[in-house]
Amino acid sequence: MKFVLGKSTTDILEITSSILFYAEKEAFSGVNKIADKVRRDIELVTDVYPNKIDDKENLGKYTVIYGTIGYSPILDELNNKKLINLSVLDGKREVYLFQLVESPLPGVECALVIAGGDKRGTIYGLFHLSELMGVSPLVDWSGVHPAKKAEVVLDKSCQIISKEPSVKYRGIFINDEWPAFGNWAKKNFGGINAECYEHVFELILRHKGNYLWPAMWASDFNLDGPGLKSAELADELGIVMSTSHHEPCMRSGEEYGKVRGKDSIYGDTWDFQSNREGIIRFWEDGLKRNKDFENVITMGMRGESDTAIMQNATLEENIQLVRDVLQVQNNLIKENVNTNLDQVPRQIVLFTEVEEFFYGNENTPGLIGDPELDGITLMLSDNNHGYTRTLPTEKMREHKGGYGMYYHMDMHGGAHSYQWVGSTYIPKVWEQMSMAYDYGVRDIWVVNVGDIGTQEFGISYFLNLAYDMEAMGATNPNNTVDFTKKWVEQQFKGAFEQKDLDDIALIMEKYTLMCERRKHEIMNDKVYHSVHFGEAENLLNESNWVINRCNDLKEKCPEYVYPGFYELIFYTAVGTANLMKTWVLASRNALYARQNRMEANLLADEISKCIAYDRSITEELHTLDNHKFYGFGLSEHFGFTQWCEDDNKYPLRIYAEPANHPRIIVAKSDSEQYNIGKHWIGNRMKFDDFLRPDVDSIQLEIACGSKEPIQYRITTECPWLNFSKDLGETSVKDIVKVSVDRSKLKGKEEGIFYVEGSDDAKVIITVEADKPDLSSYEPMTFVEYDGYIAMEADHYAAKGAAGGADFVKLSPYGRTGVAMKVYPSAADFMEAEERPWLEYHFVTNKDGIYDVAFYMAPSTPVDNEQNMYIGTQINEGAVNINNTVWDTSTRYFTSHQWGQEAHNTIKIYNKKMECKKGVNVLRFYNVSPNISLERIVLHAEAVKLLESYLGPKESFFCK
Amino acid sequence: MKFVLGKSTTDILEITSSILFYAEKEAFSGVNKIADKVRRDIELVTDVYPNKIDDKENLGKYTVIYGTIGYSPILDELNNKKLINLSVLDGKREVYLFQLVESPLPGVECALVIAGGDKRGTIYGLFHLSELMGVSPLVDWSGVHPAKKAEVVLDKSCQIISKEPSVKYRGIFINDEWPAFGNWAKKNFGGINAECYEHVFELILRHKGNYLWPAMWASDFNLDGPGLKSAELADELGIVMSTSHHEPCMRSGEEYGKVRGKDSIYGDTWDFQSNREGIIRFWEDGLKRNKDFENVITMGMRGESDTAIMQNATLEENIQLVRDVLQVQNNLIKENVNTNLDQVPRQIVLFTEVEEFFYGNENTPGLIGDPELDGITLMLSDNNHGYTRTLPTEKMREHKGGYGMYYHMDMHGGAHSYQWVGSTYIPKVWEQMSMAYDYGVRDIWVVNVGDIGTQEFGISYFLNLAYDMEAMGATNPNNTVDFTKKWVEQQFKGAFEQKDLDDIALIMEKYTLMCERRKHEIMNDKVYHSVHFGEAENLLNESNWVINRCNDLKEKCPEYVYPGFYELIFYTAVGTANLMKTWVLASRNALYARQNRMEANLLADEISKCIAYDRSITEELHTLDNHKFYGFGLSEHFGFTQWCEDDNKYPLRIYAEPANHPRIIVAKSDSEQYNIGKHWIGNRMKFDDFLRPDVDSIQLEIACGSKEPIQYRITTECPWLNFSKDLGETSVKDIVKVSVDRSKLKGKEEGIFYVEGSDDAKVIITVEADKPDLSSYEPMTFVEYDGYIAMEADHYAAKGAAGGADFVKLSPYGRTGVAMKVYPSAADFMEAEERPWLEYHFVTNKDGIYDVAFYMAPSTPVDNEQNMYIGTQINEGAVNINNTVWDTSTRYFTSHQWGQEAHNTIKIYNKKMECKKGVNVLRFYNVSPNISLERIVLHAEAVKLLESYLGPKESFFCK
Repeated sequence: MKFVLGKSTTDILEITSSILFYAEKEAFSGVNKIADKVRRDIELVTDVYPNKIDDKENLGKYTVIYGTIGYSPILDELNNKKLINLSVLDGKREVYLFQLVESPLPGVECALVIAGGDKRGTIYGLFHLSELMGVSPLVDWSGVHPAKKAEVVLDKSCQIISKEPSVKYRGIFINDEWPAFGNWAKKNFGGINAECYEHVFELILRHKGNYLWPAMWASDFNLDGPGLKSAELADELGIVMSTSHHEPCMRSGEEYGKVRGKDSIYGDTWDFQSNREGIIRFWEDGLKRNKDFENVITMGMRGESDTAIMQNATLEENIQLVRDVLQVQNNLIKENVNTNLDQVPRQIVLFTEVEEFFYGNENTPGLIGDPELDGITLMLSDNNHGYTRTLPTEKMREHKGGYGMYYHMDMHGGAHSYQWVGSTYIPKVWEQMSMAYDYGVRDIWVVNVGDIGTQEFGISYFLNLAYDMEAMGATNPNNTVDFTKKWVEQQFKGAFEQKDLDDIALIMEKYTLMCERRKHEIMNDKVYHSVHFGEAENLLNESNWVINRCNDLKEKCPEYVYPGFYELIFYTAVGTANLMKTWVLASRNALYARQNRMEANLLADEISKCIAYDRSITEELHTLDNHKFYGFGLSEHFGFTQWCEDDNKYPLRIYAEPANHPRIIVAKSDSEQYNIGKHWIGNRMKFDDFLRPDVDSIQLEIACGSKEPIQYRITTECPWLNFSKDLGETSVKDIVKVSVDRSKLKGKEEGIFYVEGSDDAKVIITVEADKPDLSSYEPMTFVEYDGYIAMEADHYAAKGAAGGADFVKLSPYGRTGVAMKVYPSAADFMEAEERPWLEYHFVTNKDGIYDVAFYMAPSTPVDNEQNMYIGTQINEGAVNINNTVWDTSTRYFTSHQWGQEAHNTIKIYNKKMECKKGVNVLRFYNVSPNISLERIVLHAEAVKLLESYLGPKESFFCK
Repeated sequence: MKFVLGKSTTDILEITSSILFYAEKEAFSGVNKIADKVRRDIELVTDVYPNKIDDKENLGKYTVIYGTIGYSPILDELNNKKLINLSVLDGKREVYLFQLVESPLPGVECALVIAGGDKRGTIYGLFHLSELMGVSPLVDWSGVHPAKKAEVVLDKSCQIISKEPSVKYRGIFINDEWPAFGNWAKKNFGGINAECYEHVFELILRHKGNYLWPAMWASDFNLDGPGLKSAELADELGIVMSTSHHEPCMRSGEEYGKVRGKDSIYGDTWDFQSNREGIIRFWEDGLKRNKDFENVITMGMRGESDTAIMQNATLEENIQLVRDVLQVQNNLIKENVNTNLDQVPRQIVLFTEVEEFFYGNENTPGLIGDPELDGITLMLSDNNHGYTRTLPTEKMREHKGGYGMYYHMDMHGGAHSYQWVGSTYIPKVWEQMSMAYDYGVRDIWVVNVGDIGTQEFGISYFLNLAYDMEAMGATNPNNTVDFTKKWVEQQFKGAFEQKDLDDIALIMEKYTLMCERRKHEIMNDKVYHSVHFGEAENLLNESNWVINRCNDLKEKCPEYVYPGFYELIFYTAVGTANLMKTWVLASRNALYARQNRMEANLLADEISKCIAYDRSITEELHTLDNHKFYGFGLSEHFGFTQWCEDDNKYPLRIYAEPANHPRIIVAKSDSEQYNIGKHWIGNRMKFDDFLRPDVDSIQLEIACGSKEPIQYRITTECPWLNFSKDLGETSVKDIVKVSVDRSKLKGKEEGIFYVEGSDDAKVIITVEADKPDLSSYEPMTFVEYDGYIAMEADHYAAKGAAGGADFVKLSPYGRTGVAMKVYPSAADFMEAEERPWLEYHFVTNKDGIYDVAFYMAPSTPVDNEQNMYIGTQINEGAVNINNTVWDTSTRYFTSHQWGQEAHNTIKIYNKKMECKKGVNVLRFYNVSPNISLERIVLHAEAVKLLESYLGPKESFFCK
């Protein structure tokens, strides 16, 4: 086994076991600690644990030299010798130089030099070596060990000067940490202490993050280290600590409860008016305690336990109170931390009521522009569900201190909680966060990741994006498929063959898309229609594919990545797919039970098995690898009926009693209608599927509703109807494919077939079929069948740019895979004369009013005015500009519309439009920013569209 | 063992085994056959089978002499000797003289003389002897054997001259006879033949009926005897045969199918226009064949299989066609049966479209008054559900031929079928049929009794009523409780002790009331609300009482009445109660499953058991007594979803998955609201039951929703609240009685109690209580609580008569036990100045508009104008006259209102009325006939009344 630093035709450097790390005494202790981790990484890859020395005189033939400008004599020496050029790092944050240097020092044939412009630059540089060796940033956290290598080769081409991160502070928020994170920490480290946090810090740093809001539900970062140990360690390792949105002055929300009291110097009320002195002292002591560490200090004040600061007061009183608080806090910081406030990173989070205090209203000016906010980063936030809320207007972007974003990948709150396994759909993260960046939100990005465990994929994407907007930002849409592939390879390259790696990426895409469509917690048997448009069937098939493929992969999975595979992929994906499947089965169980199908009873049994399976895979997660992941599956995840898990309910299992006489139940697979073939109650059915030119077959179900199995026979004299089967017996159900032979059709025709069955049942089925001549229509012309026209947004017939902006196709994106959105994303066309547009062509069967539904991403207004306008135009009609916001008199966030859109992950704007028989032209104009059009569905006013979640299947269109 | 004919202090006649029946040669053979049956009855009672002799010279010391005037020399002789007086029978139908005569003939010490004025008079007289001995009219049919007696005593007091029956033809219709009656006959007699019919005839005769419409679904009375045997036997035994409403000229509907054909002399089309000659010949041959028997000939014509006679024709064309048919038929009868048409009993049934032909419409005069109808009994009918439809107006009553009624106790048709066990609620039969009688419907009463089996109780009542209107008619309301007791004693006196007999009567009342409220077939889990107002709980308790009591009685039941007990009582009552129970369990199962109560799963298991029990009691019915009742349980009876049994569905069984953490579920027994005691989703409840002065306690349920059992503790500081239990643990549920101690109340107060449970659950319950001073209110003043006022009709404060008519309380009657109806029933007050009224007093809490619902029996308009008016008046307001018919433009029968009322057995008329705070006076005026007021329920417009089937519990009223 050997470790090779560099190899090229002209210049090969081989180091066997003799490789050394030079751990300078002058280096940051944190940097040396990171170097130790990198040495461990080398051991994981090569089985050789490199030594370190601190004696410059005895450096080895092959040495890794690392350090930070200003804290490394050896770097200065090499720089002075012009062997390296440190000046490239000047004035930049968190950058490093990474290069091979031949014979830099006596006795050293070749050195790998990692020079950081600052502490974190060095650390990122060190971890860059791990990455180059194929070590995952999750090596420690998720236990995905790298594949062993006989040799690791670096040649001169490895030389880089790293980029400066795009966003200044990039981090995570551990939140809602019980029962998962808390139990995990307790089991593995005895508590949420420094030992535990070391892993969190490492996770962040390996992802080139730098920022953390620590857990705060029932723990105190500054007390539980024990003591300040966690804070000290964070500072040592270069983690910038902050606190959550409602915990000012580096003290956690829980801390006050511990020190308050009748006789306490801090008083006994969390009230800035009645206990001003006590509160100020409380804050001051927090600032004093943590002033030596690298922090971003939270400013402002809220009520206890994340509630509003002052109830029953006017807006003006509230604003004045917050202004007072800010003044006091700024003064405390000047007195205790740094007289130059500009050198003290501070933030205020414009969350819930604070947002209103910031903007004010018509009568009351808000805090916006207040000098006390000067230099404070204004933290905006998303709508709890991954869509940004207000973003800075052009004018606001001038604010000194800039803007941050508090984003959610986990939520314990409204509109609904989602706290189980990672459910982040990264195309949305890209779309929303790249837009936020374009709007100037560039100073702090912090993401609530709940318990961290199982959220790693989303964390990776978020921190990567924050680090490198040049490569992954708005100029590079649709980068998530590539990212996913690379991420999967980062974890498992070498452990699986390429086909399997590709499938793992697909699994991640599929399962997170399931979550994007509907979060685990609020999935239930009523979400997807059990049969209409096959949407439940598709989900079932996808779920089964994920479950089966994951189980195949699990079988193959090498032991050294097994824990990571299980936690990152298997548990999240299979857990999700199994949950979705369970609800689909429940939905069918309910429908089929109501129809008296005996199949219902098998489904009920299967539901039980699915629930048991959910428990068993959680059990494996919790015991795996010496309970490394214990607790991460503990969150309730089935059947939320409230905003949180209280009173959640698993699916019901419904059993039907068999009929006393043989009963045949005939139905199309995608329809709730069924027929038992009894004359007196009506034994006729009519199918018109074959009127649609691209439908050649339909699926017929012949199900048993009785104790006794049923026999059936299918007969017809229709020459153009074929059946995959025409005779059978079943005690559950048979599926018969009924297909049309259009070559035998003369035009629009009706055929009849009969399903005769036990107990003299006879179902008489009329089938309409057509082979229309569509040659007169232009390509991309949709044709109405089945009473509706459904068009995916990217199937426009034409589009037009305006004002330097144009629609861009986003894919994968949204519930149904695609959307059209205008870039640059901050462009607003409300006042513009020309606007970007999309044009759709479709043929309707009749003149008349049509109900048109525009399906859009459930985004929220970017301004504080509750406006999201779209423009629409039918045929030669006028362009209508409509606000998609239902009620502009109430704040969008927490509005009914917000809640509904958050549940369904879709914004649907309905409009009546007058269509004419024949070809119609529908234009969609971009007006307000932040609109992503996914689909358009229309149907004649009198037609009642079948219920569904995702909407009807796309209609046929001419190609 | 001895048989004693007569015994008194002065005059005792003892006959031991030597008793003789004198079977005169001159007697009707049928009469002698009946005498044989009576001899068998004597044997059943005494174990002695009396001999018969036909030799007048050797009559025994004690002889039963029976005969029919004109066919009995011995009666003539006794009459001539003035030993009896036959003249009392002169000119009367179906009467008999029944008396003891001392030494009537040489060698005869004492004779029992039974002298009939006609054949049926004699037969009824003979069976009168059986009845006096305690032999049930069901002795043969249901196998209820009489108790053995050491002696049977008749003394002079037994002498009677029987009354003339009130209704001329009194009979039944065997209909919808598959699968039950048909299988029964096939199993026991090889078919629906003379052997089978003999039992039917006996059943009718023993009930003093005389009339039959035979089975006609797939059988021919005149062909299957074999041959004419059934018809001959009917005639011999004095049964007047007829045919159902659409089978003219004594030929069954099926017959034509057997003789039609290309080359048939009857042609091949059931069409009076295109095959006039063939049809006429068909009818003529029928008339010739059956002319020697006693018949009521059905006139008119309908289409095949009970459909309209002529589709696609105008009303006038149809009427003309029917007129033509009648003329032809009358002529055929004159030619082939009797030239004097007045001597030929004929009927026409005004069913479905024929009703319209009879009445005509605005533009087209109907058949009414047509000379061809002269002498033909016009058969009216009920609405398929036991409520008469049009009744003869005063003018119509002059029609020569009179009126008949085709009534239903079994239905295969709309609004819904009911064909399983007897479900007739006899108070309704009394109310509707006594009214029909008062309206002049006195010539024919025929009741569709489906399969006969299990319908015996209803048959008995119907035929008794038809026989004796003097004793049981309109002048004697509320006779059904007595009737039921007597009927039970008729079957089981001696077999059970009196308490048990009383309970059997109660069982019959209770189970038929269940059916009255909702027929078996259309009962389901959505009918009664699972918890509101305890209506489902009450039904469950009633059902359990019936099931348990019947099983006790079954244990005790002597073998000699066991078959009858099982068929008449046990199977019908337990079958009903078990069915009702099953659905109540299903309703609760669904509710509790949705609440995640583990109790739901036990209920689901119990539903399975109930369904199995239904099957097992049916199995016993079918095998009992050498399959005597085989088939009578075969009709589908669970979960009709259509008008007939096709696609019927048993209840679903729903299983809930236990929650992962201990979950306490707190609810009031009568409320769907529940609370799991979790702060973040709301853990407060409020109960206001104690505001109602007559409510002292409420029932609290503490249920388990989790795998683990739950512990709970109830605490309070409220001095006036008491708990039957304040600590417990359960894995299903505990019931805690919460009671108020009003002596500790100061007035209206609020108390709080806490239910604390596992997993830190805490439910905070506020209880309102009051002890209002109601002394200022008059007796019979209702007081609003719980948002509504519900008043039973008989709890009026005052009432007034008018025009010789007054409200009479009917009880038991209707869904909730009582109704008020005006008698004489044919009185119409539409044009009257004074109308009978009822006055209700109630106190409301607020001024304002109230929704007032008048609950009435689901009767139908007696005229052909779709009018059923009621009058209402609130306080000093005007009297409003409103039509309770929703849509007067359509025929009531088959209207939507008819269907809904038939399902729910209630007519609800809603009206908005302005009430004032304080005492209000509401008057209800009788306007149209046939209205029975059951309840009045009102609530403020803004109050949403809790869902229920029977409506809210009656409100508190001052006594």
